Amino acid sequence: MIVILKKNASKESFSELRTKIESLGMTIHESQGEETLLWGLVGDTSKINIDQLRANDVVAEVRRIQEPYKATNRRMHPEDTVVDIGGVKIGGGNFQVIAGPCSIETAEQISEVARRVKGAGAGLLRGGAFKPRTSPYAFQGLEDEGLRLLLHAKEVTGLPIVTELMGTSDIGLFRDVDLIQIGARNMQNFRLLKEVGKLKTPILLKRGMSNTIEEWLMSAEYIMAGGNENVILCERGIRTFETAYRNTLDISAIPMLKEKTHLPVVVDPSHAAGIRNMVEPLSMAAIAAGADGLMIEVHNNPAVALCDGPQSITPDAFDTLMEKIRKTVSFFGKNM
Amino acid sequence: MIVILKKNASKESFSELRTKIESLGMTIHESQGEETLLWGLVGDTSKINIDQLRANDVVAEVRRIQEPYKATNRRMHPEDTVVDIGGVKIGGGNFQVIAGPCSIETAEQISEVARRVKGAGAGLLRGGAFKPRTSPYAFQGLEDEGLRLLLHAKEVTGLPIVTELMGTSDIGLFRDVDLIQIGARNMQNFRLLKEVGKLKTPILLKRGMSNTIEEWLMSAEYIMAGGNENVILCERGIRTFETAYRNTLDISAIPMLKEKTHLPVVVDPSHAAGIRNMVEPLSMAAIAAGADGLMIEVHNNPAVALCDGPQSITPDAFDTLMEKIRKTVSFFGKNM
Amino acid sequence: MIVILKKNASKESFSELRTKIESLGMTIHESQGEETLLWGLVGDTSKINIDQLRANDVVAEVRRIQEPYKATNRRMHPEDTVVDIGGVKIGGGNFQVIAGPCSIETAEQISEVARRVKGAGAGLLRGGAFKPRTSPYAFQGLEDEGLRLLLHAKEVTGLPIVTELMGTSDIGLFRDVDLIQIGARNMQNFRLLKEVGKLKTPILLKRGMSNTIEEWLMSAEYIMAGGNENVILCERGIRTFETAYRNTLDISAIPMLKEKTHLPVVVDPSHAAGIRNMVEPLSMAAIAAGADGLMIEVHNNPAVALCDGPQSITPDAFDTLMEKIRKTVSFFGKNM
Amino acid sequence: MIVILKKNASKESFSELRTKIESLGMTIHESQGEETLLWGLVGDTSKINIDQLRANDVVAEVRRIQEPYKATNRRMHPEDTVVDIGGVKIGGGNFQVIAGPCSIETAEQISEVARRVKGAGAGLLRGGAFKPRTSPYAFQGLEDEGLRLLLHAKEVTGLPIVTELMGTSDIGLFRDVDLIQIGARNMQNFRLLKEVGKLKTPILLKRGMSNTIEEWLMSAEYIMAGGNENVILCERGIRTFETAYRNTLDISAIPMLKEKTHLPVVVDPSHAAGIRNMVEPLSMAAIAAGADGLMIEVHNNPAVALCDGPQSITPDAFDTLMEKIRKTVSFFGKNM
Repeated sequence: MIVILKKNASKESFSELRTKIESLGMTIHESQGEETLLWGLVGDTSKINIDQLRANDVVAEVRRIQEPYKATNRRMHPEDTVVDIGGVKIGGGNFQVIAGPCSIETAEQISEVARRVKGAGAGLLRGGAFKPRTSPYAFQGLEDEGLRLLLHAKEVTGLPIVTELMGTSDIGLFRDVDLIQIGARNMQNFRLLKEVGKLKTPILLKRGMSNTIEEWLMSAEYIMAGGNENVILCERGIRTFETAYRNTLDISAIPMLKEKTHLPVVVDPSHAAGIRNMVEPLSMAAIAAGADGLMIEVHNNPAVALCDGPQSITPDAFDTLMEKIRKTVSFFGKNM
Repeated sequence: MIVILKKNASKESFSELRTKIESLGMTIHESQGEETLLWGLVGDTSKINIDQLRANDVVAEVRRIQEPYKATNRRMHPEDTVVDIGGVKIGGGNFQVIAGPCSIETAEQISEVARRVKGAGAGLLRGGAFKPRTSPYAFQGLEDEGLRLLLHAKEVTGLPIVTELMGTSDIGLFRDVDLIQIGARNMQNFRLLKEVGKLKTPILLKRGMSNTIEEWLMSAEYIMAGGNENVILCERGIRTFETAYRNTLDISAIPMLKEKTHLPVVVDPSHAAGIRNMVEPLSMAAIAAGADGLMIEVHNNPAVALCDGPQSITPDAFDTLMEKIRKTVSFFGKNM
Repeated sequence: MIVILKKNASKESFSELRTKIESLGMTIHESQGEETLLWGLVGDTSKINIDQLRANDVVAEVRRIQEPYKATNRRMHPEDTVVDIGGVKIGGGNFQVIAGPCSIETAEQISEVARRVKGAGAGLLRGGAFKPRTSPYAFQGLEDEGLRLLLHAKEVTGLPIVTELMGTSDIGLFRDVDLIQIGARNMQNFRLLKEVGKLKTPILLKRGMSNTIEEWLMSAEYIMAGGNENVILCERGIRTFETAYRNTLDISAIPMLKEKTHLPVVVDPSHAAGIRNMVEPLSMAAIAAGADGLMIEVHNNPAVALCDGPQSITPDAFDTLMEKIRKTVSFFGKNM
Repeated sequence: MIVILKKNASKESFSELRTKIESLGMTIHESQGEETLLWGLVGDTSKINIDQLRANDVVAEVRRIQEPYKATNRRMHPEDTVVDIGGVKIGGGNFQVIAGPCSIETAEQISEVARRVKGAGAGLLRGGAFKPRTSPYAFQGLEDEGLRLLLHAKEVTGLPIVTELMGTSDIGLFRDVDLIQIGARNMQNFRLLKEVGKLKTPILLKRGMSNTIEEWLMSAEYIMAGGNENVILCERGIRTFETAYRNTLDISAIPMLKEKTHLPVVVDPSHAAGIRNMVEPLSMAAIAAGADGLMIEVHNNPAVALCDGPQSITPDAFDTLMEKIRKTVSFFGKNM
């Protein structure tokens, strides 16, 4: 940690601050430049409250050198984490496609889509029961009933299931869910993160639409700090000035995450663009950039889908896409 | 609502879509251009699921004409809403300053700050008991104990209190809180919004750091749709590319909100910049732009504050600032 | 074009506006909703000055339906444009790699890099003679002398050359340059765009770091409107809130451009991330998403490069990368 | 300057780098932490090419401590700069309003507007002769003829004039222009900056729509490094995700610039929002935040303005606004 000190402060205030820092077990390496006085703080800087340091009158600026995340940090855990979701493995060379409708609507719809995506080779079935919607007047999901239908589809097809948890009070209902999704809008709902940190169920943590990679890893850290080490990160597009698509897929996040963390990284090309025709090129790009999986919206009849129809593809289109995905995953050296 | 249709679709598919739309009680006004076929949909378009419409194969694009918010819309409620918080009024020409520390730390700290901000003329006391922190390793607030200390300070000073609610399970503890804050990171925590919509307690809804004004009003709509009409909006800076300050205060949001909604608008200059010296100029700008109040972080000793010290001002500095605020509010024609 | 009219305006002001619009040869299709009055304008709307329309007192809003670009629009020119650069073809299934140093530094440096990138299979040689630098105190390029060295390298290797033109007064020096680059900071330097529109030399138009796809195509339109149809678009990363990389590569721009325009699209992974290790994964992603080419910074000794060393790769690393690029381009069905 | 070194590099490579740095006259203060080795570089770090340092294999990261701008830096020039524009002073407590139409259209229009804004108390007359337009098909300004009309209006009213210079080749025409505007899109047109740096005419440098404050000051530095010390900065809104207004006025830039630089700061509320009704509240906010002036678009008939009609106000509205501006400027302690 680097502390840049103000120029004209008194010797007393410097020595007061020095005593305070040293009392925390840190050593100070002083560097007096022509214009600036710097202190390099050596020791376990995690004990330091940066805000307190910054608020000190003699301090001009504080800069952290080390990443603030530990459990998620590849430096501490060089090996890729492989997450096992009901027998299906993701990460460490294992690639998976998660597919299904935005929201569960009827028994027929989810069963039909489940059957088709399984046939096409998807490893997991997704489907929303509780839906976060911008408008209170929009369809909010079938809720408990939706979850029941999804569990039934799991039973019939044998596919592990993924669905979004919106609040701590629903956790009891999610006992048989194989992979619990934390949505983009809840990426910094720290209460929810702490609760799922107490579970053993794998967590799919979507990136908030304007959260940095560091903030995202800190949210994963909340889950891991609670004891749940089964975290998968899901890039789903960030908010930028560009309005040609709903979000801007941050493809660079994939190689950056691969360097910074050992956790598996999945890409959601459906939400990233919000446009059906872009699902294929963005899927290809994600595989090429090193992703460990894809999450794709499939609906048996997008024109009547209660949500996200514009970005959903049909089971037939999914069949064709899966052919390409399989070949591309193999070309880039992963197993599927 | 405008529907732009694709060029080369069949007559059958057009007439199928037309029947579907008309069955919802809408009238279609067709406009055939040289390049484009448009339909203007007339009637109660809130019945239409835009996603379904967009997902239709013959539809190129759908554009909404009317705002999707109702209860919060000034068009429906031309008069300014005045929110009464334990006898303190905000909105409709009434200006209030909310002041206090980022987090409640000790009985002495909160009592001392409460006494001082009351003396300087603040209308409400703020203080965080439950703190949303990016890092799981950072101080998370004194929680229940913090709330108890804050309630004690309320009793002693008579100031109504404001504090942040992070999760639905804590609502029971907030019975005597006068103004419940929903933080920026929870602006789209729809579960939490629904729950506070069932209360009568006024809600201070902070803007998410990358949420549009429309999304913000839709979140206020969640609360009002539940029956709680006492909503105050709080602009606290948005996330942009600029790194010279923590966030970029969106001053334009104030006049825009004044046009779009009847709800009071408060500005938080402390979080907006994250820099002590910018609190005064940003406060002045907020008043000048038409804000109904300010929320300012005050700490009796910023250099030992457990959070947000760099942006906190001392009680002495707050005294001076309040002098300026009082004169400026009066210059711009509001009461304080 | 859709005109949304204000509610309570007088009949006279409506009919005045109607007359004005009809006098431009447009037909108006009126659609009276419960809340809103709309006009659909049919005819050649390019004659309409949108600003004038919007400024009219009875107009609430104007929305364009058609794209404002013509020459660059795929709708008008469905076939892919193939640009021929000194015999090297790009677009329409032809893939090219442009490689070379950020800036030309010495005769040895540019000759050596030119020889190596040619050997590895690059189709064009890049090198900066005139460098746009944020700081007036930074190295500004070898200028005329740099151009001379680059032309010499062209002569020796036979590779067509690409270099940036910063101002109209230098155009005379660029007579033998095969592909003229317009840099990101000059994407809306309309004077420069008009001047290169008068040439026949192919133009590589980089995207401005915060320009939308529509603005980018409008800048290409400036060049094409002048008569120069040889335009190649280069995506080089946009500015977002993320600070982990210098820019955020907008991979979604590739499929979106492929739909909107017939012009070839090249990706610059070196500038996009500003990080050497990310060049390979981003190159793979660009090919997978449908790019027609790559522009990669190669330096014989990055640690002494006068600019952009951190993102430059060595000739040896480039050899290895080209092997992968060749296989990947072929896997995705393009020729190289 | 702080250099963070890689962990497992060889002693030889460290000592090689050390020698290189010391040969530039710098001293190295080493700080060996448990995890990280840091070097604090002391001396004239402006001699160091950061890119070269970063590109070195043993370097993990380089962080600058000092601001890269000098001539514009308040640290070097603590006193406010007062720019004299044909006898009209701005900065150092002197406040000015610049007013006039977006573009000069006819002799009558510019004369009429000039007469009215002078009458209302504007200190300078603005008007565009050369217009940067996104579309090559939009009105590009009256060019030379427009400049002639503007100079005539100057003669008649005695108001100093402000107009935009788009390219170096027009400089000859700008001999009698009192304040030369460099537009947002040209903020990093370094050729243009260098040319106006050779003049003595004051320069109004608009902020690029996605440029940081540091980049903006570096562009001012280009002008000052050339010898022209008469630079005024103009904040005109930045590009963010918010679409409710054309740009987001960065009000925080005003106090931040006041701390970092001695140059006067002007705000353009017309371009910032692009909405007529927001001109007044944003003007008030700008004055309150500490701006030294305003630039406001006034048109005698906005509904026929050839550009920017939606954000232009009428001379009558300007009269009323000027009354408020005068009182507010005086309230905040500046002269006008």
